[in-house]
Amino acid sequence: MATEIERKFLVRGDFFPEVYDSKRIVQGYICSSPERSVRVRIRGNEGYLTIKGASNVDGTTRYEFEKKITEEEACQLLALCEPGTISKVRHLVKAGDHIFEVDVFDGENQGLVVAEIELKEASEVFIHPDWLGEEVTGDVRYYNSMLSRHPYRTWENKK
Amino acid sequence: MATEIERKFLVRGDFFPEVYDSKRIVQGYICSSPERSVRVRIRGNEGYLTIKGASNVDGTTRYEFEKKITEEEACQLLALCEPGTISKVRHLVKAGDHIFEVDVFDGENQGLVVAEIELKEASEVFIHPDWLGEEVTGDVRYYNSMLSRHPYRTWENKK
Repeated sequence: MATEIERKFLVRGDFFPEVYDSKRIVQGYICSSPERSVRVRIRGNEGYLTIKGASNVDGTTRYEFEKKITEEEACQLLALCEPGTISKVRHLVKAGDHIFEVDVFDGENQGLVVAEIELKEASEVFIHPDWLGEEVTGDVRYYNSMLSRHPYRTWENKK
Repeated sequence: MATEIERKFLVRGDFFPEVYDSKRIVQGYICSSPERSVRVRIRGNEGYLTIKGASNVDGTTRYEFEKKITEEEACQLLALCEPGTISKVRHLVKAGDHIFEVDVFDGENQGLVVAEIELKEASEVFIHPDWLGEEVTGDVRYYNSMLSRHPYRTWENKK
């Protein structure tokens, strides 16, 4: 189990010219509380099972446990998941030594585009591209586990 | 992911003379609804992560997905679990071609002893030893996932 340090931002501009890789992700949750979530993911044709714990006070750090599983296992586990499968395309964008994962959601979360960057330390400096919008790190509404139950299209106060 | 066919019984007599193996089990739940549960288990010094789906109407059959994990991973994941760790000793008893797993609970579930038998088909015939009591297959109160939240010692109507 590793500790995951991530910062999350809305996306306000055109990042597409900088994309070097894109993969569809379909994921669901066996359970989805902010304190502990179990995620089943298919990315391309690879399966993953991921367990995350509660985040620290500023929302940057969460425990994460991940195991690779077969696509078939992932399909079977997706059928067990809570209602609210998430579908999105994840685009990768380099920014200096870092990589932004830019998720363009569809389905019930259409309209939402979020960029995440993984850091080694919470205080690490990184490049902020022009298209990077407001930071939403720690805002539980943007957790994918929450988006599966309270999708973006149902939000009244979108930023 | 396999389909698990199990029948579960209370234990009303002395099964100890027939025991051929005993191991302590400590387990917790990342989530614990009857519809979908994620269990972290340490048995002896082996770790397991197990996901179970809802059972069928008569309670005999549930989908089950299990991965072996390290004892260290299991310890870390136990720390993420919901309150209510279960501790029990699992004794194995042969009965013809079958094996009964007899769980003697301690801690908050002290006093509860349950025997489970795994079958290939729901209708399969098996030996009923003298010490086998009332069947509780499908009674969700006896699910370990429920015992972690509503332990046996708090029950008002024990059988």
